Amino acid sequence: MSVKLVDLNCDLGESFGAYKMGDDSEVIRFITSANIACGYHASDPVVMAETVKMCKRNGVAVGCHPGFPDLMGFGRRNMDVTPDEAKAYVLYQIGALYSFARVNGVELKHVKPHGALYNMAGKDIALARAVCEGIMEFDKELILLGLSGSAMIAAAEEIGLRSAKEVFADRGYEDDGSLVKRGRPGAMITDEDEAIARVVGMVKYGRVKTVSGRKIDIRADSVCVHGDGAKALEFVKKIGAELVGNGVRLAELNEVIS
Amino acid sequence: MSVKLVDLNCDLGESFGAYKMGDDSEVIRFITSANIACGYHASDPVVMAETVKMCKRNGVAVGCHPGFPDLMGFGRRNMDVTPDEAKAYVLYQIGALYSFARVNGVELKHVKPHGALYNMAGKDIALARAVCEGIMEFDKELILLGLSGSAMIAAAEEIGLRSAKEVFADRGYEDDGSLVKRGRPGAMITDEDEAIARVVGMVKYGRVKTVSGRKIDIRADSVCVHGDGAKALEFVKKIGAELVGNGVRLAELNEVIS
Amino acid sequence: MSVKLVDLNCDLGESFGAYKMGDDSEVIRFITSANIACGYHASDPVVMAETVKMCKRNGVAVGCHPGFPDLMGFGRRNMDVTPDEAKAYVLYQIGALYSFARVNGVELKHVKPHGALYNMAGKDIALARAVCEGIMEFDKELILLGLSGSAMIAAAEEIGLRSAKEVFADRGYEDDGSLVKRGRPGAMITDEDEAIARVVGMVKYGRVKTVSGRKIDIRADSVCVHGDGAKALEFVKKIGAELVGNGVRLAELNEVIS
Amino acid sequence: MSVKLVDLNCDLGESFGAYKMGDDSEVIRFITSANIACGYHASDPVVMAETVKMCKRNGVAVGCHPGFPDLMGFGRRNMDVTPDEAKAYVLYQIGALYSFARVNGVELKHVKPHGALYNMAGKDIALARAVCEGIMEFDKELILLGLSGSAMIAAAEEIGLRSAKEVFADRGYEDDGSLVKRGRPGAMITDEDEAIARVVGMVKYGRVKTVSGRKIDIRADSVCVHGDGAKALEFVKKIGAELVGNGVRLAELNEVIS
Repeated sequence: MSVKLVDLNCDLGESFGAYKMGDDSEVIRFITSANIACGYHASDPVVMAETVKMCKRNGVAVGCHPGFPDLMGFGRRNMDVTPDEAKAYVLYQIGALYSFARVNGVELKHVKPHGALYNMAGKDIALARAVCEGIMEFDKELILLGLSGSAMIAAAEEIGLRSAKEVFADRGYEDDGSLVKRGRPGAMITDEDEAIARVVGMVKYGRVKTVSGRKIDIRADSVCVHGDGAKALEFVKKIGAELVGNGVRLAELNEVIS
Repeated sequence: MSVKLVDLNCDLGESFGAYKMGDDSEVIRFITSANIACGYHASDPVVMAETVKMCKRNGVAVGCHPGFPDLMGFGRRNMDVTPDEAKAYVLYQIGALYSFARVNGVELKHVKPHGALYNMAGKDIALARAVCEGIMEFDKELILLGLSGSAMIAAAEEIGLRSAKEVFADRGYEDDGSLVKRGRPGAMITDEDEAIARVVGMVKYGRVKTVSGRKIDIRADSVCVHGDGAKALEFVKKIGAELVGNGVRLAELNEVIS
Repeated sequence: MSVKLVDLNCDLGESFGAYKMGDDSEVIRFITSANIACGYHASDPVVMAETVKMCKRNGVAVGCHPGFPDLMGFGRRNMDVTPDEAKAYVLYQIGALYSFARVNGVELKHVKPHGALYNMAGKDIALARAVCEGIMEFDKELILLGLSGSAMIAAAEEIGLRSAKEVFADRGYEDDGSLVKRGRPGAMITDEDEAIARVVGMVKYGRVKTVSGRKIDIRADSVCVHGDGAKALEFVKKIGAELVGNGVRLAELNEVIS
Repeated sequence: MSVKLVDLNCDLGESFGAYKMGDDSEVIRFITSANIACGYHASDPVVMAETVKMCKRNGVAVGCHPGFPDLMGFGRRNMDVTPDEAKAYVLYQIGALYSFARVNGVELKHVKPHGALYNMAGKDIALARAVCEGIMEFDKELILLGLSGSAMIAAAEEIGLRSAKEVFADRGYEDDGSLVKRGRPGAMITDEDEAIARVVGMVKYGRVKTVSGRKIDIRADSVCVHGDGAKALEFVKKIGAELVGNGVRLAELNEVIS
């Protein structure tokens, strides 16, 4: 029986100018993939350059984290962009990050849309197709990192783009595999031990208990973690340790999905 | 005796969202190289995508036109950026444009800094080096397009980056080959026939009469033209026709400097 | 019998930096109220200063035209802002414009939300209330200019804010008084004579024929006109002339609604 | 003999969207005047609304802190703006903040230009005049807060604008009263006790020892303090306590300069 592999991904490079965000230099020691912001919802060229270098030093896979052009809202607010606009925004941001990867001799490995773009393209197949086409046209070896069971994963499979399915440690799931909306009962898994047990279950056995109590199948190629603050960092360490303790090997996406 | 070659370059893709600028679809018929804005001083991803496609259809060489992050000032205001910032800004913008070139199967051929960045890096060797290093690290085949006799050309030669020297039809020159400052007597060549005769002289004979009346050597690999409005377009057509009529062949930078 | 009054309003001051938009100095001769952009979806402080001065010289009422912080989308894309954000954005923009009005000895007369904010607050009563509260708290003498029959007008009446109802010359109406969605049959009134006849009918008799053929009541305190291009200008002139020819007097909002 | 008065001013409201900066709710307890960022170099409308409310609750004077439109550089980079642009930017930002002051029933008391605008207008009299004219035209009761001995103070006095002179606890002074340039020996006063002793000397006796060892006259209406981090906060508390312990009374600018 083969060993289970899973990727741990985290949003990095979200600082902007004089504004600092996240403990990038800490969390990077415990993850396998970084989603680097590209100047639309967060980050700037100087931050991007530094973050790519930090990923290289730590052997962490570099991915692009494109978002909406809404710095004031951190890319978290839905915007009625057209599929053509979304595709162009994704291509722009992929290219911008690619430049720093290229000059540092690092490969761009994956693309994970950010915030509202992630959510909207997770449900709207036309938007999802536009995003996936942008990624595919830039480089057909790139991996889309999207919510397990989302329209983005469907669009990627439809056009032949490689994709990886992401799960969340701290979120509840509906019976259809979608996330319970924030604000609803069961949306957040606040007990840390429970959250970690759920992650192990999703990664190792491909199963998760939904908010209604049912057990459903779920595919977990990558676990989304956060690195802002001591508590978040502690949690990342624990998740990694528990996965490894349960015989799971941490590996970057390319290896996980191959 | 070999035929003289020269490139005609024009800034394209300067529209932004609902704001239109320039008659790109007209002027593109008469030029050999396009400097495409990259979202910092002008342009947006949708405009960039369209402009690259337009260049491809018209067989015009695609170049990057990176500027300062000053949309409100159209990148024309000096900003005290550090060399590291300038390099990162240039890399960001090269990558962003490269993405649209790549998905359209078009090569990125040159980089011409815009406005205040062009002027500042034309005089400040540290800034010029930073810009040139960014270009060189991204792709050593890229050509820097800079003011003939400027610090940018010097920096490119210093580090081994290919470079092309640009001249202006409508500007006066000082004895040292620099442009007469705007606002000073002789800064602008307003007579159209004189301007064209000067261009032919610079391109064909490598000579220009300075504001003091002396004749100096000048190297003209490319002539900067403008495409905003009927008069500018007419002027571009005339320059091209006069050059050709004088036995000069229009060619893109790569051929001109090889 | 009293003479009918109506205001003609037009969006002005939409230029931004090097980008020019609209023939402000032409259209201003034919309107009674100007909605001046405030730097979020369009305009900049220099443009705002000039536009307020132009309004003063022409005796045109100065109004604020606040929009979403989406310069790239010209404020035309729906954004999921909270009511608190919308209120703060409106207050920010009112204050910014007020400053130029104040130093020029001109009063701020009205506020007309722009684009997607206009549309969203026209349907979402919570957003409409937030916008109206912002206006009211700044100055209870300000007039909200909103779509006749919209949630914004309802919210204004609810909280006691003065309001004026706007109609469109070139748009079709549904039986419930809402605009026919762009793209649907009957959305646009393309025949100029028909458009003008409809305006006269709405202003003078308070009636309009809907897309289904019914005649409904409609209140027209102000007619929205456009000033971009020769054709639009010609149309503005004609509407004004026809209204006057039909015994209607052009007047600014304050007089119309008093 | 009358008691000496001095104001303690601090930059507040520098957070932006998801980005937090400064411990505003802590430092506000120890200061008398707040310089609130206005969305150009930092802050956003939601932050401005909250910061004005916080000032009101704490009885701290509300001032405007206008900066260059350079969010990426936090307004710290010199930009070649024209005096007209500077004046328009200042008016825009004063108005934007005024709006939040007005709806909260709070008066706007002073204006302190930020960062590079502060530095440039501190040396360039034309720029200084433009800034001061903007402030004066908006409200002749407003107080310009500028570097003691700077061109801004000179311009304010020239046109009759009220002004207050600011000193820095942690900076060295040249014999002519200007600040020693950062990076030069003596630029920073790193010893905390020395810094506090210097402040007491400047406020109480109007004297400071320069980097060359001379003692010069200096006028200190206000001391600039910082509130980012535990150490900065501790320092603010100490300065206030030492001033009070030396018989100086903390008061807002209006009282200090009257």
